[in-house]
Amino acid sequence: MTITITAFETSPDGGKGLARDTRVRWALEEAGLPYGVRLVSFQAMKEPAHLALHPFGQIPTYEEGGLALFETGAIVFHIAERHAGLLPHDPDARTRAIMWMFAALSTVEPPILELVTAKFVEAGKPWTPDRLPLIADRIRARLGQLSVRLGDADWLDGAFSAGDLLMVSVLLRLKPSGLLGEFPSLAAYVARGEARPGYQRAYAAQAAVAAGVQA
Amino acid sequence: MTITITAFETSPDGGKGLARDTRVRWALEEAGLPYGVRLVSFQAMKEPAHLALHPFGQIPTYEEGGLALFETGAIVFHIAERHAGLLPHDPDARTRAIMWMFAALSTVEPPILELVTAKFVEAGKPWTPDRLPLIADRIRARLGQLSVRLGDADWLDGAFSAGDLLMVSVLLRLKPSGLLGEFPSLAAYVARGEARPGYQRAYAAQAAVAAGVQA
Repeated sequence: MTITITAFETSPDGGKGLARDTRVRWALEEAGLPYGVRLVSFQAMKEPAHLALHPFGQIPTYEEGGLALFETGAIVFHIAERHAGLLPHDPDARTRAIMWMFAALSTVEPPILELVTAKFVEAGKPWTPDRLPLIADRIRARLGQLSVRLGDADWLDGAFSAGDLLMVSVLLRLKPSGLLGEFPSLAAYVARGEARPGYQRAYAAQAAVAAGVQA
Repeated sequence: MTITITAFETSPDGGKGLARDTRVRWALEEAGLPYGVRLVSFQAMKEPAHLALHPFGQIPTYEEGGLALFETGAIVFHIAERHAGLLPHDPDARTRAIMWMFAALSTVEPPILELVTAKFVEAGKPWTPDRLPLIADRIRARLGQLSVRLGDADWLDGAFSAGDLLMVSVLLRLKPSGLLGEFPSLAAYVARGEARPGYQRAYAAQAAVAAGVQA
């Protein structure tokens, strides 16, 4: 069945791979699935046709036959549950990989989103310079805890999983801030994720859109 | 196999049901599963024994035989996947219920967490009175989109599911703010969730801890 996802026609990050379609592209590449991409403008994202697919007016969405999904974590899980390479077979290990998917999106990403909101949405507010260090400290607290749990392992729980895919994707958002560099083991973890052929192909595909050379 | 979860020894909300153990208790009640509770003090949450269970030093955790989990969404999913009552059988409907689980935690809850952070962690900061209306508007934007999607349905996608359980739980955090009252269909949706016998039992169990009368 043909898979079609949506992505920004003009990504706010200019093709640095931080838009959430990259996470879905990466999962599709790890699973070895071909997919098509429909680009959506900011205006179209707020129009009825797109809102019917995505009630919150965002990207990515995922269409496969009669199934229409939004929400990156759910799309990655849907792919991971049906194809080899993203979830272990052992039931307890599988449950823990899913646990890390939720941990990436529900516990590690929220303070990182606060930083993004402060830097962009509240960029011109008089309080932002004073708030940024507070937000950075909240992120550091999470990163410190995460680095303790990771220890000297390559991945969060045994082999690479969809949990790592989302955690690496979330941590990638911190690159411009310099915060990741304060935790060398996490920086190395992110680099291991970026080095995977599946990530490389996903990154190249979204960069091609930004460069106007999408195949 | 015995199930043991952790909860606050002294809940910051004084037993209003907003701590995340209520979400797990509710899922266990919907599935009809007995469970034990181990109460954890704020000090114990930061000590090695608890951090071995929960790397981010929070509650709830979930232990069942050799399986140890943290992260509320993952615990609710683990329960929902193995017991009737929280996920539909039809594969596409099941995938959409999981989609709403992620949407509750990754899209609807983050701006609500920002409000909690502003009101408590940044309560004494000079900028907080000026920031609160901005955060409230971000929440309103999400609630407006969610209320459009819900329409006049009872639940987000067919029968009650783990997606509704988490969405109702996330929206319950807004009760003190008055924002929920601006969206009558969402307020009614939350009230439907609260009226479920499983929620009632979960609420009573956590309130009993706060009242010092845990069974």
